[in-house]
Amino acid sequence: MVSKNQIKTITGLQQKKYRKQHKLFFAEGIKVVQELLNSNFELHQLFTTQDIFKAVPDSKTEFITEAELKKISALATPNACVAIFVMPEEKTVPDSGLIVALDDVRDPGNLGTIIRLCDWFGISHLVCSEQCVDVYNPKVVQATMGSLTRVNVVYTGLDEYLQKTALPVFGTFMDGENIYSESLPENGIIVMGNEANGISQAVENRVGHKIAIPRFGDLQQTESLNVATAAAIILSEFRRDFSGK
Amino acid sequence: MVSKNQIKTITGLQQKKYRKQHKLFFAEGIKVVQELLNSNFELHQLFTTQDIFKAVPDSKTEFITEAELKKISALATPNACVAIFVMPEEKTVPDSGLIVALDDVRDPGNLGTIIRLCDWFGISHLVCSEQCVDVYNPKVVQATMGSLTRVNVVYTGLDEYLQKTALPVFGTFMDGENIYSESLPENGIIVMGNEANGISQAVENRVGHKIAIPRFGDLQQTESLNVATAAAIILSEFRRDFSGK
Repeated sequence: MVSKNQIKTITGLQQKKYRKQHKLFFAEGIKVVQELLNSNFELHQLFTTQDIFKAVPDSKTEFITEAELKKISALATPNACVAIFVMPEEKTVPDSGLIVALDDVRDPGNLGTIIRLCDWFGISHLVCSEQCVDVYNPKVVQATMGSLTRVNVVYTGLDEYLQKTALPVFGTFMDGENIYSESLPENGIIVMGNEANGISQAVENRVGHKIAIPRFGDLQQTESLNVATAAAIILSEFRRDFSGK
Repeated sequence: MVSKNQIKTITGLQQKKYRKQHKLFFAEGIKVVQELLNSNFELHQLFTTQDIFKAVPDSKTEFITEAELKKISALATPNACVAIFVMPEEKTVPDSGLIVALDDVRDPGNLGTIIRLCDWFGISHLVCSEQCVDVYNPKVVQATMGSLTRVNVVYTGLDEYLQKTALPVFGTFMDGENIYSESLPENGIIVMGNEANGISQAVENRVGHKIAIPRFGDLQQTESLNVATAAAIILSEFRRDFSGK
């Protein structure tokens, strides 16, 4: 049974303002909820139509009907459960290892895909500019498919962050060096830019190493790669030489 | 001015059945429509709120209001125009060069992203199994950002197609060879599988070279990469050694 007040609170969490205020976010669907339950994330409350989450204490489980699920879900086709979790504290980002930094990436699907890529390539820290889409946006949470539990996402002023780091800073530009012929280090920061405008001028000034993914074919008319597919290619290039380790 | 009959025809083109029947499809937004107009695609009719498509003959241009645009658009936020184009004939796929084949890729965004990737990497032919999402689905057309005009997309029985080819056939599998240490050829067919089930058994039997993108990090819990990001990494690997040409 879900009360009117609970519905209001849960659907309110679709907005960043309420998520920040309550320090809570929500996730949906068996797979994603299960991954979050198996992680260090703290469960606040679980609403489910199915008795399948055996490890969750009764005090935190609320059995609901399909009709109630529809009322609290953000999906067109809700999938068995909605769970509210406590937002974890952002962890300190070390000045070592390979780190991805995003300059105003706005699309929830792109952020979710990039978090999955970080997880795949063993990158534990993702630094986002303040204008990036919120990682606890329900669409981002869904798109991460649970990878969110293994990647620390931090929001900060990107210009200031890059000013302080001792790591080499890489960024993709049309006139950058061919990424296939560059010798890429094991440690560094890879900056990915906004979907429409790329990397901003202030951040560009902090990029010491401009790289580019070469285009092939005769026509050369493709304007750009999507930021998530570009990230896939770049992360793969940074990791490939260390894949035997 | 758009008549009721025209609205019915245009919105009907959101369905594959009507697209096949009329041999027409539609595209939206200034950028995508402009790219299609600049290509070999034959315009059937243009509906626009703005007088910006100078090269289009008056007989094919219909000026409409914002309210009318909303009625014929498939987008939540329509962008200036909707254009109806004639579906081009599928071209014959040569048995040479690098070719991508999709085994039941269902998500419109994934197909659109893969077409953009093919365009970027100079791959002119994309072979889709009959169960793949239709390339003229409005969401696919939008996601291609015009790349559709430079990549020939063909639908066929994939098993039969792979049986006949003399090209080496590559496919991604969890237990495949590390793609970073394989010597990849300039010519071949790269098969990408369905979002949930990967490559089907019948198609797997035709794959001569099983490859894998290695995972990094200690946790190794990420289940899989999204098919479009996996395609980005694989196409990049196939092309990187030939990037100096």
